[in-house]
Parts: sequence; C-alpha cells; structure tokens
Amino acid sequence: MKHLAKQEKIAFQGERGAFSEEAARKLLGDGIAVVPCARFEDVFRSVKNGQARGAVIPIENTLAGSVHENYDHLQNFELPIFAETQVRIVHNLIAIKGVKFSGIRRVFSHPVALNQCLKFFSGNPRVERVPFYDTAGSVKMIVEERLTDAAAIASAVAADIYGAQILQKSIEDDRQNFTRIFLLRRPESARRYAAKSDSGQWKTSLVFSVRNVPGALFRTLAAFALRDLSLTKIESRPLRGKPWEYLFYLDFLGRADSPNARNALNHLGELADFVRVLGCYPKGA
Amino acid sequence: MKHLAKQEKIAFQGERGAFSEEAARKLLGDGIAVVPCARFEDVFRSVKNGQARGAVIPIENTLAGSVHENYDHLQNFELPIFAETQVRIVHNLIAIKGVKFSGIRRVFSHPVALNQCLKFFSGNPRVERVPFYDTAGSVKMIVEERLTDAAAIASAVAADIYGAQILQKSIEDDRQNFTRIFLLRRPESARRYAAKSDSGQWKTSLVFSVRNVPGALFRTLAAFALRDLSLTKIESRPLRGKPWEYLFYLDFLGRADSPNARNALNHLGELADFVRVLGCYPKGA
Repeated sequence: MKHLAKQEKIAFQGERGAFSEEAARKLLGDGIAVVPCARFEDVFRSVKNGQARGAVIPIENTLAGSVHENYDHLQNFELPIFAETQVRIVHNLIAIKGVKFSGIRRVFSHPVALNQCLKFFSGNPRVERVPFYDTAGSVKMIVEERLTDAAAIASAVAADIYGAQILQKSIEDDRQNFTRIFLLRRPESARRYAAKSDSGQWKTSLVFSVRNVPGALFRTLAAFALRDLSLTKIESRPLRGKPWEYLFYLDFLGRADSPNARNALNHLGELADFVRVLGCYPKGA
Repeated sequence: MKHLAKQEKIAFQGERGAFSEEAARKLLGDGIAVVPCARFEDVFRSVKNGQARGAVIPIENTLAGSVHENYDHLQNFELPIFAETQVRIVHNLIAIKGVKFSGIRRVFSHPVALNQCLKFFSGNPRVERVPFYDTAGSVKMIVEERLTDAAAIASAVAADIYGAQILQKSIEDDRQNFTRIFLLRRPESARRYAAKSDSGQWKTSLVFSVRNVPGALFRTLAAFALRDLSLTKIESRPLRGKPWEYLFYLDFLGRADSPNARNALNHLGELADFVRVLGCYPKGA
C-alpha cells in the first residue's frame, strides 16, 4: 500500500463528487485523497490544523458572483492561494444502472441545481422535482436506496464515484455557468512551490480597504496603472458597521515579488488603511 | 372595494412571504398586491408586459455577492431602477399555532437557509434538517399539511401571511447577512417620479465595458475622480467568450442628469466600448 501513503489529502466543501472535487482532480490529478467537509470554515480549519495538505474552494461564479464568505476565511485563516482553475458547472441527469429514462418519475437535487434545469422540467412535465441538501449527495442517496423511479442532478464525477449512470448529459439551461476555484496550502508549502516554478504568467490576489473620500479608489489604482500592471479583477464590498469604508478585492497579472509589483504594493500601502496579499500563483487557463 | 382597485401590483421571485416581499412592503407599504413569480426572468417580464406595475429584485448580498443574473436582466429588459433598500436576512423558526418547541422533530427550509443556522442544529441534535425548495414555501407547506412535529425556517412576514407562529426569532449564525434590493418600474413611471422628487441624496447605477489594456479602468475612473463624484460600488466581471474584455458595475452618488454627472458620463463614453445607465434613484437608508 505504498502508493496510498503518498496520496495528498485535499479538503473541499460538499459530498464526494462535488464540483470542488472535480476542480481538485483537474489541478492535482486522480491520485489525491479527498476530505469532504460540511462547511467552508471546516475546509480551512482542516488545512490549518494539518488534517489536510491542501484545500479547494470556490471564489466566484459567473452567474452568482463572488463568494464573500471565502474571502473572509482567506483573511482569517491566512492560507495562501497556490493555484487557480475554472470548472464549468454541467448538470447531468443520473440514475442507478439499469434504469431507463422512461421510468423516471422524481428528480432529486439541490434547489439551485433544480432551478438551473427549468427547460428540462418544462419539457418533461411527468417528472417531479424533489429538493435535496446536496447535488452529489442526491446521487449517493438514490444509489444507497436503490431507487428505480428516481434520478439525481449532479456532476459526471458524482455518477462515477457512486457507480451510477448518466441518462442525459448537460441538461442545464445556461452553459455560461463557470466557477473559479482556488487551491490553498499552508504558507510554508506555497513558498516552496513559488521558488520552484518561475516560467509562465502569474497572478496576485489582494484585499485592501480605503476610506471613501471622492477619488480614493482612483488614487489607489494609480499605484498599478503608473507601473503598467494589468488588473484582472476589482470589486468593492461595503464594510458593515463602518459606513463609508470599503473592502476591495483586486487581482493583477504579475508576481508579488517582482520589483514593479513590490513598488506598487508599497505605493498602495501609503493610501490604504490595510493591504493583505492573499496569494501569488500561476494564471489558470 | 374601491381601495383594492388602487393596489399596485408588485412582482418578486419566490413564494408569498419571501424576503423580497418584505422589501416591497418596506419600500411601498402594506397596501400593495403581490405577484409571486417562479424565476427572476418572469419577474422582469411581468413588469415589461404590464401584468405588474413594478418589481423588487435582489442585486447583492453581504455574504453571497452580486446577483449577476439580475444585472443581465436589467440590461436586457431595460427596466430602470426606481428605488433601493436593504433587508436583513433574519431566519425564524416557525410552526403552526399551538405547537410547542419541545414537539419539533423536523425543520424544513431551503438548504441555503438551513446551512445558515448550523449553531441552532448543533444545539438541538434531536431535530432533523429537511431541505425544501423555498423558505416561505416551507411555512406554507407545514400550515397546509397541519404538521405538528415540524417547523420551518423563514421570514417573520411568512409566519404572518400563512397564520403560523414564530417559536424562535433570529436563529441565523451570522447577523451581518443583508440583501440590497432594487425596485424597478417601466421607464415612463420612473421619469415621472424623478421629476417630482428633487431633495435628498441620489445614486446612479451603470454598467460599462472596456478592453483590458493596462490602465484602462484607471482612465475610466478618472472621469468620476476629476469631477469629485464619489463611487459607492465598482465591480468587474469577465465577459465570457471575450477574453480580456470586462463588464463593470459602477454606482456613484449623484443624479445622472446633473451637469457634473453628464460630463463624467460623456467622458466615460470616450473610453468605454459601451455605457448603459441602469437607473438614478434616491439613496437608501
């Protein structure tokens, strides 16, 4: 069992077969051992306390926006971003082996997934929608219960893991449904990795806050524009309980330790109330 | 029944008693007639085709981020923003009248709401979590089915509407859970309203796109900074299928038709690929 000892433990939120597991395999291959967690906070904690070697977390979705909760955990747990990737959210109709589509009367899934497949349901009015707590969890349940009149909506990875079959691929209404995923590690691993890989394009993610006097954001962005650093994300978030103060999420192309970026971050430090670099990682495809 | 004829029809997504209905009452009082819709698209369509006089939609949440889908509908349906407000998402434990807390064995709600009340469930392990398609819909169901061993998690308005009682108030883990809501109307109503009310502070919301050359965003923000216009929101969103092009959401304090703002918008027009003003409305409390 020597190869098992080498398997890296990677934590994510959700049941086995969640879209985050798909992202973990995309980033690290199939040789990982997965640590499914109930909540995002548990995902971060499991890396912090050494139970897992890394974690994958969703940070933004093309339909639903940024996941503020995970930006908060990134700041509180201080786990650096190590890599990024994107997964397309593909909803598949999944049943136990041997079941035919004509026999399906009920479809289980998370309500958000059910609501993203409305064309399928209006085209198949005989099929009842049944809300469930998790997409992959609904596959697990129909397999365990050996339901022959039911299907689940989940990822292809979930069908594979629980030994079920895909009856219909990609039944989602909108194909422009992508989630950006971060891979996190403990600070010491990230530093080791950064030293190894120098080629290719890099991205740096940071958060900072400025008091909202007119033009404050403009002046902070000058720190990047004056050094020809290209932004790939900027987002403001009102700070609750602190009227007129904002938190900003910013990504730029480049390594945080390049001379240009170091100067920009120093310049930003003069203007912002606080600045925190969340990570510096190879730009995803 | 003369007063009924005067009731304004207001559309929103969800069942009666949804948080959007709470926002509609906050903005317009209790004299409205509500038009619950299954999907956000149906909400916009019902105003567009005259079935409803106005609509309330969530645009961003302090935990979950901006609702990109509604930004898309704002652009496609061209319904101007007429007012804004915020509602705190308070999750209450609700049962039919006469039921005591000690008798509750199952709690129904939308999985997102169930996941926002984890402290309640870990403190009450005898209570089973049951996912349901809607928060307010779970109250409706336990009332219709006369369930005596079950509760629902939903808004206080939902308890009121379905004649149920609140067993425990505010069982959510995080009280910093606020949703910003827009009131929309047809363009002609918005124009009439804007002419009437001139006092107080205003906000203008717009979307624009720029090609991502270094410093492009910096130059577009100069249009506002050089005229001392204060931004209250800026957010980038990558345009799918158009690498290196971004859509920006921007809110500034001021009326779109003030000389300063008109000059800023003209200046922005020189730099951006397209600019669309989504609305100009009194700043919410």
